[in-house]
Amino acid sequence: MAAPTALTGNYIRIQTLTSYFQHCRRSKRWINLKTVNRRSPFCQSLKRHVATVVSGTGLARQIHKEVQSDIAKLVAQGNRRPHLSVILVGDNHASHTYVRNKTRTASLLGMSSSTIFRPASVSQEEMLELIDKFNRDRGISGLLVQLPLPEKDVDGFHIVNIGKLCLDQRCMVPATAAAVWEIIRRTGIETVGKNVLVVGRSKNVGMPIAMLLHSDRNHERPGGDATVIMAHRCTPLPRLKELTSLADIVIAAAGVPHLITADMVKEGAMVIDVGINRMQDPVTGKLRVVGDVDFEAVKVKAGFITPVPGGVGPMTIAMVMKNTVTAAKNAPTY
Amino acid sequence: MAAPTALTGNYIRIQTLTSYFQHCRRSKRWINLKTVNRRSPFCQSLKRHVATVVSGTGLARQIHKEVQSDIAKLVAQGNRRPHLSVILVGDNHASHTYVRNKTRTASLLGMSSSTIFRPASVSQEEMLELIDKFNRDRGISGLLVQLPLPEKDVDGFHIVNIGKLCLDQRCMVPATAAAVWEIIRRTGIETVGKNVLVVGRSKNVGMPIAMLLHSDRNHERPGGDATVIMAHRCTPLPRLKELTSLADIVIAAAGVPHLITADMVKEGAMVIDVGINRMQDPVTGKLRVVGDVDFEAVKVKAGFITPVPGGVGPMTIAMVMKNTVTAAKNAPTY
Repeated sequence: MAAPTALTGNYIRIQTLTSYFQHCRRSKRWINLKTVNRRSPFCQSLKRHVATVVSGTGLARQIHKEVQSDIAKLVAQGNRRPHLSVILVGDNHASHTYVRNKTRTASLLGMSSSTIFRPASVSQEEMLELIDKFNRDRGISGLLVQLPLPEKDVDGFHIVNIGKLCLDQRCMVPATAAAVWEIIRRTGIETVGKNVLVVGRSKNVGMPIAMLLHSDRNHERPGGDATVIMAHRCTPLPRLKELTSLADIVIAAAGVPHLITADMVKEGAMVIDVGINRMQDPVTGKLRVVGDVDFEAVKVKAGFITPVPGGVGPMTIAMVMKNTVTAAKNAPTY
Repeated sequence: MAAPTALTGNYIRIQTLTSYFQHCRRSKRWINLKTVNRRSPFCQSLKRHVATVVSGTGLARQIHKEVQSDIAKLVAQGNRRPHLSVILVGDNHASHTYVRNKTRTASLLGMSSSTIFRPASVSQEEMLELIDKFNRDRGISGLLVQLPLPEKDVDGFHIVNIGKLCLDQRCMVPATAAAVWEIIRRTGIETVGKNVLVVGRSKNVGMPIAMLLHSDRNHERPGGDATVIMAHRCTPLPRLKELTSLADIVIAAAGVPHLITADMVKEGAMVIDVGINRMQDPVTGKLRVVGDVDFEAVKVKAGFITPVPGGVGPMTIAMVMKNTVTAAKNAPTY
């Protein structure tokens, strides 16, 4: 296992290659240096390795195309166009951006959508009434409730759905967990009998991911058949390191910037970064989004890695779209 | 970490003590050799270690007393006596014994109980009607459905309860999972930040245990705040060994006789054996019950260990009693 200092050493040794890499970056294509290595004898002599960067943006585009054609088929068969409704509570900037991205994507794919705004002071009673009304409305295929505390979404309203999820029954898989699942599947990574470390135990992300990945592939809602380690804020850092070094797949969903460092990760592992943390750049002073993974350092050790932004984020939106169409398909024809 | 051969060596070296231990065994008291060591200079020089055997029978007796006094209080306050109803499907011998143990315990504690028998061919419809009828019956505090496939119990009927369990909300914890929880609590073992390995992912045992132990101690239904590893039949044996050696608490619920051997277990770890396997004794030819743990070998390496029989089994029955009284308490007074 190479320590971070060794990796920094590698960085210095390949300075002469910098212009080549910069050129590739500028052309906006992610470079798989493993492929580069095979072609260039110069790179080979340096034994330079960089993980395949799994682009969530690219995979999301794939799913969007599938959803788009599904919608076209549904409408051609005389069904109503799938409709996504959003109840947006409070005026949190990030929530607004998140919802706008979803409704914009919905309309691009041929879905109609609508957003209802409520202040953060809305009563529990009004919310339940609203949700009940929307649930009974046959014109609405999918409903998103975006609250100031995102965990509440699952906590309060979907006990039955979470029950089904945990019993491996057919259900709506929470969008972020579904996104992680699809990233693993579409990258072609095997999970059966592999060690998967999930860092973070939130009820809408970490917990459902653990449920999906540890369960039986032959059940009604197929699982990943992986050995799953559930770590979280109570896991002491040295123990997290020990467990991470055994993991074939690391899923970082703790909300701690740069929690997963290169010295923790097993060589060749897949690293999926679910974290979205807003940090002030120490040089420019600007706010920027960083994940839970120290991307630059980990990518020269991991086999596969998702970036932030452009990884789990766009895939989550794609899965919301997919869930909405699934809901429209399952609804009685009208 | 001592290898099994080293342990066998220890056995030979202490042969002179055999008669002493046999005497203690005959008196039907489990011997904590760590305590013995402290007292006898002869034992100390041999550095003989044997785990504290946590008697489920003893702990269950504790809980039974608590339940008994709870029932007495309830009745003294003018409430109806708690009543446990059992629907027993099929004619599996083990199920009948299991149910008989429960109803007998119920009456010993001052609860009334009744058992309804149905053939294995009973229709899903009749079962649902029966359960619905019992659920509405105010004279029944607790209902047990004992099916030929025990997993079905949770699978089919308690989606909402499992949903609540997985969202850390107040709920009925499945009895075996509750038994494991109570064994850890009442033995005074710390779980916060500790590594817990759960072997087996059944929906009524392994999964709820993992849910209880990994979740937040400050939530509505308090959790153990442990790092939890969920292993199962797809976990390759060498990897299971690797993970077991990191575990402070091992919970074996796989249904595989002697799956957990001494070489796997970390010295001083707590080992809880949920397995109930019927095996033919190679010497006597008689059927006997063995757990998932190689008890004799593991007990000289572990810090705490539960035996089979007399471990999780009686505690599970105690937890069924406790759940029934809790249900009676939560019901509207009548």
